[in-house]
Amino acid sequence: MRPVSNPRGGRVAIIGAGFGGLSAARSLAGVAVDVTIYDRLNYHLFQPLLYQVAMAGLSANEIAVPIRSILWRQPNVDVVLGEVVDVDVAGRSLALVDGSRATYDYLIVAAGAHTNYYGHDDWAGVAAGLKDLDDAIEVRRRVLLAFEAADRELDPTARRALLTFVIIGAGPTGVELAGAIADLSRDILARDFHHIDPSMTRVVILERAPRVLLAFSERLAASAADQLRELGVEIRTGVEVTSIDDEGVRVGDETILARTVLWTAGVRPSPLAARLGVTPDRAGRVLVEADCSLPGHAEVFVIGDMAALIPAGTTAPLPGISPVAIQMGRSVAANIRRTIAGKPRVPFKYFDKGFMATIGRGRAIAQIRRISLTRTVAFLAWAFVHLWFLIGFRNRLVVFLDWIWSYLMSKHGARLITGRYLAPPRPAPRAHVDTAPAPSAESSAGSIHS
Amino acid sequence: MRPVSNPRGGRVAIIGAGFGGLSAARSLAGVAVDVTIYDRLNYHLFQPLLYQVAMAGLSANEIAVPIRSILWRQPNVDVVLGEVVDVDVAGRSLALVDGSRATYDYLIVAAGAHTNYYGHDDWAGVAAGLKDLDDAIEVRRRVLLAFEAADRELDPTARRALLTFVIIGAGPTGVELAGAIADLSRDILARDFHHIDPSMTRVVILERAPRVLLAFSERLAASAADQLRELGVEIRTGVEVTSIDDEGVRVGDETILARTVLWTAGVRPSPLAARLGVTPDRAGRVLVEADCSLPGHAEVFVIGDMAALIPAGTTAPLPGISPVAIQMGRSVAANIRRTIAGKPRVPFKYFDKGFMATIGRGRAIAQIRRISLTRTVAFLAWAFVHLWFLIGFRNRLVVFLDWIWSYLMSKHGARLITGRYLAPPRPAPRAHVDTAPAPSAESSAGSIHS
Repeated sequence: MRPVSNPRGGRVAIIGAGFGGLSAARSLAGVAVDVTIYDRLNYHLFQPLLYQVAMAGLSANEIAVPIRSILWRQPNVDVVLGEVVDVDVAGRSLALVDGSRATYDYLIVAAGAHTNYYGHDDWAGVAAGLKDLDDAIEVRRRVLLAFEAADRELDPTARRALLTFVIIGAGPTGVELAGAIADLSRDILARDFHHIDPSMTRVVILERAPRVLLAFSERLAASAADQLRELGVEIRTGVEVTSIDDEGVRVGDETILARTVLWTAGVRPSPLAARLGVTPDRAGRVLVEADCSLPGHAEVFVIGDMAALIPAGTTAPLPGISPVAIQMGRSVAANIRRTIAGKPRVPFKYFDKGFMATIGRGRAIAQIRRISLTRTVAFLAWAFVHLWFLIGFRNRLVVFLDWIWSYLMSKHGARLITGRYLAPPRPAPRAHVDTAPAPSAESSAGSIHS
Repeated sequence: MRPVSNPRGGRVAIIGAGFGGLSAARSLAGVAVDVTIYDRLNYHLFQPLLYQVAMAGLSANEIAVPIRSILWRQPNVDVVLGEVVDVDVAGRSLALVDGSRATYDYLIVAAGAHTNYYGHDDWAGVAAGLKDLDDAIEVRRRVLLAFEAADRELDPTARRALLTFVIIGAGPTGVELAGAIADLSRDILARDFHHIDPSMTRVVILERAPRVLLAFSERLAASAADQLRELGVEIRTGVEVTSIDDEGVRVGDETILARTVLWTAGVRPSPLAARLGVTPDRAGRVLVEADCSLPGHAEVFVIGDMAALIPAGTTAPLPGISPVAIQMGRSVAANIRRTIAGKPRVPFKYFDKGFMATIGRGRAIAQIRRISLTRTVAFLAWAFVHLWFLIGFRNRLVVFLDWIWSYLMSKHGARLITGRYLAPPRPAPRAHVDTAPAPSAESSAGSIHS
């Protein structure tokens, strides 16, 4: 057993090993506290590349690292695989889903966000979200199975529905997925399938807002829309989805027949936000003090996607993106250290490094402080930043090799359909009758598998 | 659409894209036939390394390649994702699970084998088999969750059961799994967990036969047993398992308390063997002619694990291993070519390249024709052969880098617990009460997550 560095220091509990929680844990290295980090999953996920797993460009373990393997060198950190379901801020304790409890001196709540269906939770089965590896593997399964079924489908309408991919929500994830589907279909349809070709694929993005990528400037968003259209993606903004079912998506008076629907329309902070004794804001976030602490509880911090922190002199909270979470994690760790040392806390100050989004292979937009980049230059900036920040040298190397290889060969090596135990969310492709031109069983013409 | 090379040639249907089916399909390149290859999965699996995925040493896509990506360069091959459930040898047609049918002029049945529970199919839930990627991901999930639960378990008996891994069957897969569990527990327990250590792990192999690795010589099997014992693996031969449940495994009068049980005691050929109009042998295989054809049906071939071919001058059928399947695939493709050209067929002749099995990292045994190798030399031979035969340059490169890295760092980078939709086959670890030494919630001693 590894000795605990200072058993008499304070006990820090961290809920969630995403960007925020992990950054806090690492920033507490060498501090005289015992840290326990809780997560319902055993891996830290590099979420900005999750869409690449969904689109078979990368495999799961290229963007995910076991939490223990990140933190094992840090003797003051204990990792617990378990979902925290409740917090008692008055009693300074938390409860796990298995019924066990733990107490803390400091608590960092960094439980992130889930897919938000805005009251339509019944759509979760047909419109897959994309928040963790299991989501991504499920999306990959659906997309690849749609191509397989389309290759065997003889009815043109049914085939069209199988090759139509509707993405609801035109934020960065939606835009990135749309570009990646276009790439995937061009690469693998052109080569792997004999009965379908890339021009048959239809990718539609639906967005309620008047334009795509609201977080970016109008100019960059317009460039992104242009780049998407170059890939053949249809963009419909200012539209409201009224229903989603096995047939497709209903928008206004029209039904878009589609067998694969992906949902990237928004996120909702972890329900833990409502267990902290304060009323969350309209988006479900916790309005925190300038040091990310919970109002009235200086020993509790809320960071990342769960926190609404409105910087002095502005009116909007900081966005739910990884740089904010990472910097908040560092800040609360520093403030815990200062508090233990008897020093006053310092308010959180966000250093805005910029926003980026890719649009397929080789296209992107980027806002890096006052500099706006588009297309290849933006893509190179994006690739550099994302490779650099991927945690762990091994992943960096393997992802790099994978990318180089993908570029040279246009391969999607990770396109494995796994997860047979998952209940299919939609009926199996209908069996079609043998319509080979010659009636004789001995005919050698026609598609023999039809 | 890709033009079909010669629509007037014969139609060859291949059932299964394992080593046998794939080798047949590739050997039919350039032959004036239209080939359709059917598989229930979309990937070809390099099965000899499957245990590495189960033990988190490799990730799924390092040992699996989409069938389409192997065959896309071959214009006379069509790939169909679909399970063949029946064959009508008289009518020369086959039926898919979705109800569609297809006809053929030549049929190659290479559907492989499934895990055989020898009448105890109720054990399938508790004793996981290892035949495809989903199996491997499930085994990985169970093994890693057992370590996680053990780290939190305070009761010594329950902890012991969580850290006990029973492998039923001492063939190559069982031996390789046992060695890999020993490696994994040494690597990750020593470093990642604070409350358990490697000496707590217990790995037991149970085997009905009087010794391990019956397919190898007594001398090599004895060496393998020695090497396993060096890793701390307990070997019990000549024992009969009478029951398996959530508590553990019953052997004779003893119950081995174990939360993870793996089943590698045998395989059963695909049920298609019984749909070919002949009576399978006792092991469920199809007794084939010298050219691998079905007796009475020269246009149907059965190869690989499904075939029982007794070479002239011997009494035992060829073993169910990949070199036999690969060579049979090549042989039947050559015989189809000869038949079309009006030439007589040639009987299948097996070129025995040898047998190998690893025992953890750096240990192995190998029988290469008359040469017996053990330990490091055997392991190097094994590593060379397995890397060499991994299909696809990209996989070879990535697996090679992964191995080098694993060697240098003793990392198990692929240890992600995914598959949350899988119903847990066993009850969740029991919740344990807080037994921190001090009763006060403010106590800073003890394990805060217990």
